[in-house]
Amino acid sequence: MGTPKGDQNLLRRHNRGLVLNLLREGAPLSRTALARKTGLAPSVLTRLVRELLAEGIVTEVGKAESNGGRRSTLLALNPDYACAIGLKVEKTRVLAARINLAGEIRARHALPFPNPRPEGFLELAQSLVEELAQGEILGVGIGISGLVDAARGIELYSPILGWREVPLAGPLSEAIGLPVYLENDVNALTLAECWYGAGRAFRNFVCVTVGEGIGAGVVVDGKLYRGAAGGAGELGHTTLDPHGPLCRCGERGCLEVYASDRFLVGQAKALGHETIDGLAAAARAGDLAAQAVFAEMGRALGIGVKNLVNLLNPEAVVLGGERLDAADLFLPAFEEQVRRHSFPKEAEDLAIVPAELGEGGFLIGAATLAVREFFRLPAEGVTT
Amino acid sequence: MGTPKGDQNLLRRHNRGLVLNLLREGAPLSRTALARKTGLAPSVLTRLVRELLAEGIVTEVGKAESNGGRRSTLLALNPDYACAIGLKVEKTRVLAARINLAGEIRARHALPFPNPRPEGFLELAQSLVEELAQGEILGVGIGISGLVDAARGIELYSPILGWREVPLAGPLSEAIGLPVYLENDVNALTLAECWYGAGRAFRNFVCVTVGEGIGAGVVVDGKLYRGAAGGAGELGHTTLDPHGPLCRCGERGCLEVYASDRFLVGQAKALGHETIDGLAAAARAGDLAAQAVFAEMGRALGIGVKNLVNLLNPEAVVLGGERLDAADLFLPAFEEQVRRHSFPKEAEDLAIVPAELGEGGFLIGAATLAVREFFRLPAEGVTT
Repeated sequence: MGTPKGDQNLLRRHNRGLVLNLLREGAPLSRTALARKTGLAPSVLTRLVRELLAEGIVTEVGKAESNGGRRSTLLALNPDYACAIGLKVEKTRVLAARINLAGEIRARHALPFPNPRPEGFLELAQSLVEELAQGEILGVGIGISGLVDAARGIELYSPILGWREVPLAGPLSEAIGLPVYLENDVNALTLAECWYGAGRAFRNFVCVTVGEGIGAGVVVDGKLYRGAAGGAGELGHTTLDPHGPLCRCGERGCLEVYASDRFLVGQAKALGHETIDGLAAAARAGDLAAQAVFAEMGRALGIGVKNLVNLLNPEAVVLGGERLDAADLFLPAFEEQVRRHSFPKEAEDLAIVPAELGEGGFLIGAATLAVREFFRLPAEGVTT
Repeated sequence: MGTPKGDQNLLRRHNRGLVLNLLREGAPLSRTALARKTGLAPSVLTRLVRELLAEGIVTEVGKAESNGGRRSTLLALNPDYACAIGLKVEKTRVLAARINLAGEIRARHALPFPNPRPEGFLELAQSLVEELAQGEILGVGIGISGLVDAARGIELYSPILGWREVPLAGPLSEAIGLPVYLENDVNALTLAECWYGAGRAFRNFVCVTVGEGIGAGVVVDGKLYRGAAGGAGELGHTTLDPHGPLCRCGERGCLEVYASDRFLVGQAKALGHETIDGLAAAARAGDLAAQAVFAEMGRALGIGVKNLVNLLNPEAVVLGGERLDAADLFLPAFEEQVRRHSFPKEAEDLAIVPAELGEGGFLIGAATLAVREFFRLPAEGVTT
């Protein structure tokens, strides 16, 4: 809500943020274009760019033909000016990666974490950070399953890990002397796709993950929407059939019952296959019963996502998660359901696209939690 | 994204907007409090307030004890400085109201509109506006069922009215010489509850309406969320049971099949009652079969809203619409379902509250479309 007149430092940081965000989001720009797009006076802009060049955050990357025939220098963000580290806590291991400002993975590491207990996490995370830290590190982000209090850095409840009320960000930050951020893993993946992946093309989209569980992340107006307590996106436990079989959450007929890996594993076994991969191979070889399983799974997922689309009217559904490897088998039935809608035009306009960042997306997203702070404007409405 | 240095007019409008929004949202404030909250220099603030007092937008409403014992004058918005007119298009009539800046209805009017056709709307709307216009009118808002292109002021598709691609705002604006805004009726109601009703206490909430149809409006971070094409909130056509009976939209087992007035009317007739009111009277008199109908309706609505809560994790569900008159009969079953959640704490924290504005809410919301423009800041991030 504004800032006291004369707080030049805050104003400078705000203007600097405007320039850095423009360079982050798009193609290289000339000083003239930056001045126009930020609304900053050319003299202010020139001074700011001089600083950013001296610090190495921005680099000159070539010349562009300008209107008058004079060629102006193009400026771009230096993606390797700084990095951030992302961690992903899983049931048997912790994964880690260092990414640069362009979301590129520069190094990876992993450590086993069998029977994960909160007490063991700090030491493990510290080793991973020490292993990967190199150059300027902006901070560390942690992606974890379950309900997360991002503001306080506390894991509130993870049914998968069996953790409750575990402070994670604070202790790690104290141990390593860097800012540490915490977020639900699907939200982290959604952030990654939003900044660096398939979500870049959209202001409002949902990222749906399919695999062991079914989750969703919601992006509203270019920003991750977390809901009142960080619990938005619980797609897997929306009810598909109130009279359906019991879900592990205690309710009946949740979407996860019909479309997660548990469903596929159960059906695979019933058809004499050991694994989901075996079932998929049979389906691809023409086995009609195996094909029907994936069609059924795709149809159920499609109904769940159709409901989501009815409620949020997103521009796009970005599909991610481990089971994307069987997309060829479930996508036709999925899409047929999603595009059923009371307003047909809306469903036609909806884009359905695969996530772009692959399994590294979770780690990129966790690290992006720290990168996002680097680019955050100091205040929403600065006035002097 | 900032504004050219020296654009003092824009900056003045921005600062003026900051002050007006603060006075709109809360209790009366002293000049000192306004300077602190806006971050404006006391001299700038004093000049601005002098202007606003002279124009009559702001009034002095009393004195407050300040720290040093000196009593400072409190300032408030003058709610009757200006008004806006809201219209609601229904199947047999068009309703209209004039509201002031505090969302209070100052006058109402209605005209019959049987077999509504787009061609007849302009003349009708013009008469209503002329009847109600008095004093400073900021503009006119129209609330209408179906999918609305708010930016272009076009009704895209209303199954209830049978209208497709009808430009409404442009022609009316031309005829009456005032700005005209268009929005889906449930979105308008949601805006009204957000600005003047039960939603004031929340940043993120959903407004659910029950009656002939079932709809929802979504508020994210204090703003109405419309989705990619204005189609967010289609709660009534989320699937409750993929094998259920056919809905009028052509799909099976939509929530509307189980929880709208059509369901109640059907059940009422089956039990020998003429109307929903008759069924409700029987239920209140102890008729177990009639009670079971409302419990079933509440349970279905609860499952639909539970799914919405899972996806959006709102702070509150604001319940509105005509059938709120039977809330005593369906609310227990409704609430029992909504509070079933894979993260129990989230469901506990959820507030379930009735809409506060009653049936006038749709009209207040339509008019608020115009009031909202009056309070809109000229730019998001103004820098000089």
